[in-house]
Amino acid sequence: MTYTQHDTIVALSTPLGEGALGVIRLSGLLAIDIVDAFFIGKKKIKDQQSHTLHFGKIVVQDEIIDEVVVSVFKNPHSYTGEDVIEMSCHGSPFILKSIIDICQQHGARLAKPGEFTMRAFLNGKLDLSQAEAVADIIASENKAQHEMAFKQMRGGYSDVIASLRNELIEFAALIELELDFSEEDVEFANREKFMQLILKMKQTVSTLIQSFEMGNVLKHGIPVAIIGEPNAGKSTLLNKLLHEEKAIVSDIAGTTRDFIEDTIQIEGIQFRFIDTAGIRQTDDNLEAIGIARSFQKMKSAKIILFIVDIQKDYKQIVNDFKQLAILPTQHVLILLNKSDRIVDCNAYDIEEAISTLTGKKVMEISAFTGRNLDRLTHELVNIVHAEKLQHNGLFVTNARHLSALQETLLHIQQIELGLQDNISGEFLSIDIKMALHSLGIITGVIELDKDILGTIFGKFCIGK
Amino acid sequence: MTYTQHDTIVALSTPLGEGALGVIRLSGLLAIDIVDAFFIGKKKIKDQQSHTLHFGKIVVQDEIIDEVVVSVFKNPHSYTGEDVIEMSCHGSPFILKSIIDICQQHGARLAKPGEFTMRAFLNGKLDLSQAEAVADIIASENKAQHEMAFKQMRGGYSDVIASLRNELIEFAALIELELDFSEEDVEFANREKFMQLILKMKQTVSTLIQSFEMGNVLKHGIPVAIIGEPNAGKSTLLNKLLHEEKAIVSDIAGTTRDFIEDTIQIEGIQFRFIDTAGIRQTDDNLEAIGIARSFQKMKSAKIILFIVDIQKDYKQIVNDFKQLAILPTQHVLILLNKSDRIVDCNAYDIEEAISTLTGKKVMEISAFTGRNLDRLTHELVNIVHAEKLQHNGLFVTNARHLSALQETLLHIQQIELGLQDNISGEFLSIDIKMALHSLGIITGVIELDKDILGTIFGKFCIGK
Repeated sequence: MTYTQHDTIVALSTPLGEGALGVIRLSGLLAIDIVDAFFIGKKKIKDQQSHTLHFGKIVVQDEIIDEVVVSVFKNPHSYTGEDVIEMSCHGSPFILKSIIDICQQHGARLAKPGEFTMRAFLNGKLDLSQAEAVADIIASENKAQHEMAFKQMRGGYSDVIASLRNELIEFAALIELELDFSEEDVEFANREKFMQLILKMKQTVSTLIQSFEMGNVLKHGIPVAIIGEPNAGKSTLLNKLLHEEKAIVSDIAGTTRDFIEDTIQIEGIQFRFIDTAGIRQTDDNLEAIGIARSFQKMKSAKIILFIVDIQKDYKQIVNDFKQLAILPTQHVLILLNKSDRIVDCNAYDIEEAISTLTGKKVMEISAFTGRNLDRLTHELVNIVHAEKLQHNGLFVTNARHLSALQETLLHIQQIELGLQDNISGEFLSIDIKMALHSLGIITGVIELDKDILGTIFGKFCIGK
Repeated sequence: MTYTQHDTIVALSTPLGEGALGVIRLSGLLAIDIVDAFFIGKKKIKDQQSHTLHFGKIVVQDEIIDEVVVSVFKNPHSYTGEDVIEMSCHGSPFILKSIIDICQQHGARLAKPGEFTMRAFLNGKLDLSQAEAVADIIASENKAQHEMAFKQMRGGYSDVIASLRNELIEFAALIELELDFSEEDVEFANREKFMQLILKMKQTVSTLIQSFEMGNVLKHGIPVAIIGEPNAGKSTLLNKLLHEEKAIVSDIAGTTRDFIEDTIQIEGIQFRFIDTAGIRQTDDNLEAIGIARSFQKMKSAKIILFIVDIQKDYKQIVNDFKQLAILPTQHVLILLNKSDRIVDCNAYDIEEAISTLTGKKVMEISAFTGRNLDRLTHELVNIVHAEKLQHNGLFVTNARHLSALQETLLHIQQIELGLQDNISGEFLSIDIKMALHSLGIITGVIELDKDILGTIFGKFCIGK
């Protein structure tokens, strides 16, 4: 089923600016004819095979506009599934603008953002969630984002959702059949097996919904709260971490745009460090507000670094720690700072004692000398990898998908209740159809409104 | 003669930033092997034919980095004359950086600016002045710049210089022969014909040197001085011209970077309008300084628009005009402004009278209503086209070429003097060799210092 839009679109596919080269892409029924109208090579493009390259000139009214290399991709073996021509031109904005103008004069229309990928979707080259991942791939700024987006483009949870949906369709068909024979009171759909499917779906959909939080956190940076008493060394630690890792960020020219003061990448994972006001008992109102804010920030963190002075009595440390309201989904590291000030043999014993009493990982460090900071960053990375394993690396990061999954969950819960109450197939059928619809929205197998498609692809860059 | 550098170079050839796609280019002996080490397609690239396109994945340690389309150009049928691979990747800075890293890990070296084009030059794909024109093509921001650079890349005055140089070599050889037979006092080189050649060379080289001024002016904008008495309408005219034409400039997104307030493009030619202080007799010292500056600016202009109030007595206008110190190389238009304030039938007569008395083109306009401004811009464009015709569209815009041409001219003048004085072949030979050398510098046929090449190509963008 190849759905060909009737007009041929053109756009600059490389970033605007001066460069060695710029690529102009055309897609559609007339792509080849349009280029043949002004490209002078050895042969006409239409007489060339797919997946070949041709050097030639772009000539308009005897004037040479550029020397280019043309790439030919013939329908259906192209990104969009249509005839696609790419022209690799000299990277002068003036030349690129001129050539796009010429394409328009010969009948091409300027592509809207994401329109090439939209055509790939409409022609069945990608499903909708895969198409959406293409935009995420382009926007990815670190390894974690890239990995998630890429996994999604290559199938990701699309496959999971498609297979659940197919199983549900089978039951839906059987139940429809029952309705046709309703007078005979037969039961084609095995209710027990159906319940098993529904429970499996509930599990899968819930896990995907839960992955959203982690997925987003991976996309935008894992929030790490640094908390502790005043002078425990919070800012020294933060500065040290930022200073040590900033080099890694800044040697990737152009990848970091709006640099957030306390965001760093460690082994391709983005962490967002949140320095908090020191926490202590206080009668000062203003200070109390700062401390309240610290607690607030702590709540939104995925990882908490509780930093204390190692010279403090360990029972006091354990006591202070127990005052903290830590959520069950949060990871905690207790950092015994200023270990440069004590004799080494002590440190291990204190670590042991505190770890036993709190049940948390404890680590002696020196923010001042940098001692054990590599162990610390390694531990942070490990926490993230463990979380990723839980979700098989599949994360929902798209808000549209999340809302469709949440809707699906509601319908599945309705079906579950219906099955428990042994309601009639007629009523089950309604919820099944609604669950199928909301699942279908994710991969785009159900026909979507033109406006919705416009919104989805409007977030893309032009030329993709 | 294919000169292959021993290492393989890699660079991003498209502008840095997010885009639909980014192109990474490799050139050198190992280009194909390097890509084969991590590209998984249907077949190995080394088994593919030149000028073909291949879809596949970039895989490192079982991790997919990207899905790309690889273009294969086999030596010598490539831009550089070496094996060239281009990978069209998703336009994410993160991905592009990762892939370039992988290429480096497999033995490629980051290309220096212009190094691909330098290899094209070293492999005889382009001569030096053509290679330099590639950078100008990329930097071209308007039609005039583009035309000049393109003409140069496709041969331009390289051909003219090469053919003069070849003729000179012939004479040089004959004179060398004379020296071998110096005891016999023979004359192989016909002195008369040689003098003809020298005069032709002098003419050609001088014309090219003169073209530099116009070429630069075309590249950076033709300076047009607007002069006239206070309240003659200078600023109204400037605003009207800028306002009318600015739209043309600003719909070319990204082409105009540092917008100079009073530069506009008309039919692809850049004009730089210079508004001057009103010129009149004055006792005021400060005003006198302003007027002195106006005269200074007037000197640097290529075109002078002398604007006067049409209601003024025409004899007075002619008189005022004759006070101006206009250089013989400057073009002048006399603009009779405020023609909206008089009855039409008058205007033509006044135009005629002033034109006859001054020998200059005269035009009635109304800066206020915009009357005849199209005629004015048309006239400006015509002046430029006439100048371009004088030089057959060949302009020296490169300072390196200018200095080599000026040096050549000196040696040619020495040869001319030598021939007039009938000096011995021995002495002629020295100047001939020096002329050959300075001509050869332009096209790069003589071996150039590595440092000089570095300087020339260092101005390029990376990836070209």
